[in-house]
Amino acid sequence: MTTRRRKFYGWGYEGDTVSAAEVAEFEQAWTKLLGVNSFVPVPFPTVDEIKVRAPRISIPAALSTICTDDKYDRLYHTYGAGTVDVALALRREFRNPPDVIAYPRTEQDVFDLFDWCGRNGYALVPYGGGTSVVGGVNPPDHDRYRGIVTVDMQHFDKVLEVDLASQSARIQAGVLGPSLEAQLKPHGLTLRFFLQAWEFSSLGGWIATRAAGHFATAYTQIDDHVQSLRVLTPSGVVQPKRFPVSGAGPNPDRLFLGSEGALGIISEAWIRLHRRPKFRAMNTIRFKDYERGVEATRLLSQSGLNPSNARLIEREEAAYTGSSDGSFDILVLGFESSDHTVEHRMRRALEICEQCGGTWDVAPRGSGVDRDEDAKNWRDKFIRGPYLREYAIARGVMRETMETAIPWAGFAALRDHVKAETHRAIREVTGRPGSVTCRFTHIYPDGPAPYFTWFAYGNKQRIPEQYMAIKRIAEQAMVDAGGTVTHHHALGRDHRPWYDKERPELFCTVIRGAKATLDPQQILNPGVLFDPS
Amino acid sequence: MTTRRRKFYGWGYEGDTVSAAEVAEFEQAWTKLLGVNSFVPVPFPTVDEIKVRAPRISIPAALSTICTDDKYDRLYHTYGAGTVDVALALRREFRNPPDVIAYPRTEQDVFDLFDWCGRNGYALVPYGGGTSVVGGVNPPDHDRYRGIVTVDMQHFDKVLEVDLASQSARIQAGVLGPSLEAQLKPHGLTLRFFLQAWEFSSLGGWIATRAAGHFATAYTQIDDHVQSLRVLTPSGVVQPKRFPVSGAGPNPDRLFLGSEGALGIISEAWIRLHRRPKFRAMNTIRFKDYERGVEATRLLSQSGLNPSNARLIEREEAAYTGSSDGSFDILVLGFESSDHTVEHRMRRALEICEQCGGTWDVAPRGSGVDRDEDAKNWRDKFIRGPYLREYAIARGVMRETMETAIPWAGFAALRDHVKAETHRAIREVTGRPGSVTCRFTHIYPDGPAPYFTWFAYGNKQRIPEQYMAIKRIAEQAMVDAGGTVTHHHALGRDHRPWYDKERPELFCTVIRGAKATLDPQQILNPGVLFDPS
Repeated sequence: MTTRRRKFYGWGYEGDTVSAAEVAEFEQAWTKLLGVNSFVPVPFPTVDEIKVRAPRISIPAALSTICTDDKYDRLYHTYGAGTVDVALALRREFRNPPDVIAYPRTEQDVFDLFDWCGRNGYALVPYGGGTSVVGGVNPPDHDRYRGIVTVDMQHFDKVLEVDLASQSARIQAGVLGPSLEAQLKPHGLTLRFFLQAWEFSSLGGWIATRAAGHFATAYTQIDDHVQSLRVLTPSGVVQPKRFPVSGAGPNPDRLFLGSEGALGIISEAWIRLHRRPKFRAMNTIRFKDYERGVEATRLLSQSGLNPSNARLIEREEAAYTGSSDGSFDILVLGFESSDHTVEHRMRRALEICEQCGGTWDVAPRGSGVDRDEDAKNWRDKFIRGPYLREYAIARGVMRETMETAIPWAGFAALRDHVKAETHRAIREVTGRPGSVTCRFTHIYPDGPAPYFTWFAYGNKQRIPEQYMAIKRIAEQAMVDAGGTVTHHHALGRDHRPWYDKERPELFCTVIRGAKATLDPQQILNPGVLFDPS
Repeated sequence: MTTRRRKFYGWGYEGDTVSAAEVAEFEQAWTKLLGVNSFVPVPFPTVDEIKVRAPRISIPAALSTICTDDKYDRLYHTYGAGTVDVALALRREFRNPPDVIAYPRTEQDVFDLFDWCGRNGYALVPYGGGTSVVGGVNPPDHDRYRGIVTVDMQHFDKVLEVDLASQSARIQAGVLGPSLEAQLKPHGLTLRFFLQAWEFSSLGGWIATRAAGHFATAYTQIDDHVQSLRVLTPSGVVQPKRFPVSGAGPNPDRLFLGSEGALGIISEAWIRLHRRPKFRAMNTIRFKDYERGVEATRLLSQSGLNPSNARLIEREEAAYTGSSDGSFDILVLGFESSDHTVEHRMRRALEICEQCGGTWDVAPRGSGVDRDEDAKNWRDKFIRGPYLREYAIARGVMRETMETAIPWAGFAALRDHVKAETHRAIREVTGRPGSVTCRFTHIYPDGPAPYFTWFAYGNKQRIPEQYMAIKRIAEQAMVDAGGTVTHHHALGRDHRPWYDKERPELFCTVIRGAKATLDPQQILNPGVLFDPS
């Protein structure tokens, strides 16, 4: 139903490719990193060669204009965008595809789908951009459901109303990043919420999974941008009123932020926006001593300077992306403002870095696009990352990321433990050494959000199993060391084992009660947050 | 059980008085404001002269060390600190005092009290500092309860643990503002949460009511300071883990922020703190044109300059406090930082003000305590305010405040409507004109938190009824014009009629379900958020 079809097994549209030269460059890097001399890729799959279960659901006439059981649509909606997803697709394995894909155009369509699924015992999987890396959109596999309907919200893609004075807009939740920004641009506004999946993830997905975006400090989570939601549930509409802030009882929007499709479908939201930045300063600071780099970053997080970018990257990772020769760690530091020059803030930030032994080349400038080459290199690779995943996996290369957040006091021990355990896991599972590095994606006055990247060379036919075996050990190490199971990748089904221990049990009972109220037949995304009873 | 007893009918400790000279000064102001020539005060009550219902509960031996039915304790815990509370106390009217006051010293004490109340059908009213102005601590009056036990958390008053690197501390919820700051000071830390009731309100109260503090922008609500809570409920402990931030499902702490004692008793919390400010700049900007003052304040809120103070005060109110001759509105503007000079931010803020027609006397300075006289006058009166309330009410003067928040686009119409309706209400109810003025206490990029102050001269014996009659009309006007029922005064029992319409009905059902899980016998603070079933 899209004009340009998305790949059913990987990132981007059909026809989006990574050039042979780019692949060769990466293969060279992987050779260095993993000691593998040559890579023989598994070919990418075609729709025709996939065997898939016949749909278990027949679409009633009344819903035929918004529903399909077309094979491509079912394959495409079988998986998210995680390593396991891509690896299973490359293995031509689509064991549990949704039976029907619905593309509602109105809220009434959504309610009709709730009714239909409720009456017939179908599970309903809300689907935004499909970029979950934690099994958040994968159809559940529970006996109690007689079929699976995936509800793709892509037609809810409009900015409905702009309140310029209040710098906010009412926006449909199915809109993807680029379309959202294109619609806001004529108003001089931006959400400036550039996460790695920005091109193909949706506002509703960000809200349902509590995603984190562009800003390294302040306004990091989508939570901070939500003024009020409109949520459709099988029991009716929940629409808290729109205020800048209210102190009236527990905040209703917060129940749905992070609800991962289990409590309702977000239809639209009033969102706080920003004016487009006019003033920028960026710099890359080098640290010979990692601990002092951490110290500088901590002081920055507590300085009130509010950098928009403050990503401390370990030397090994910086070397991989060409931002370091491997003898220093780097801090990619940026300030931006729509209102005033940021040179004073950059100057003070550099003072702090200098006190911690940081050095840099570029003298700070106060305005305009000012981005030195190292920072640019890193950023380009960041946005390009997802396109590479299927190429890596086809070659047996797992490049994975895990993220958490922890008070500053606990970070050093967490990093040591996660790196040691992940190295051990990679060696145990794949029989050879891998790479594990750390950077900060976001920082808070009370602690950083460390982001670990690991590379391992696996068995091309056993990537899903090998990946999960490594992930289990690495995630456990992160949690054991005091980190949260997720800072911004969400829970989905993959993070459930750790979430089940992280959340207070009584709170889970409360959320189960909320589900009983809002979704009494338990049709909505079963298996996220908790198992259906 | 306190070393120094609090007044049972008013603000502060027994013996705290407002000097005759100060009273005379205020009387003069009220004469000007309300056209009343002389004031004859009702005398303040004494414990002995109050008639009070005999306790309906006998204290079991096992609880005798933490419970009392002493008359003073019961009178003191009958009321909060609102106008109706003080007026009823001055009328010697204590119709529904709690039967027993408990002062638990341990969490086990609290659980013992839950058990005791649950088994015997007593309502349990959690009590922090007792400064509610919305009937949040007043014993409920429902037939289903056989008695009322107020649980005063004053012994939970310690900072238990400080994590200096993460600028946070684990703090018992019963601690009052001054003791909290005194315990943090040796560590160089501060919560900097100076609300008007700071001297006598508690951390747990701020959390349960989602109070707002010192900062006019960013970190305004206690919500922003809470890292994680520890909540005691009749069904057990709820203690979300402590992270700077997490994206794992709906945030459990947010269920209890604003729960007003209906879902549990907050025992302790990990709280984000600040280092003490070293650099300050303050200025008072005058506006001849109020609309342009609003415009300047809006631009400031969207500038990213993050003033710590940005309180736009209407000329009539500024005149009352001596900060204006009545021909201009003022913006009390402040910046502060523990890390860097703030002169650049002040300079840019003044540029914005200038573009909107603002003028000022004092050239900005960058560091040190820099507070001009006008701002100081206003602040001193702010902190002094509550001490005056009983003196005003004893003289028939109602000085009341109402607060809300609204998107910028709706503010002008809201202000006009609230002022017109409140003026009308005062005239209808008291038969004479009053005063209604507006200031901003907090501002957000998407809207201000307007704060209305009204004065009326009533009938000394009918203040509670007259106050509520005016309040009903004024609050209705605020809500009709698109404001929230409360930005930071909370709901208590007084704001229920409007809250019942503001909250989404399905969300209320969810919260009722949460209560059924956490407090199955519905003993906790019945009547806040919703009525017991």
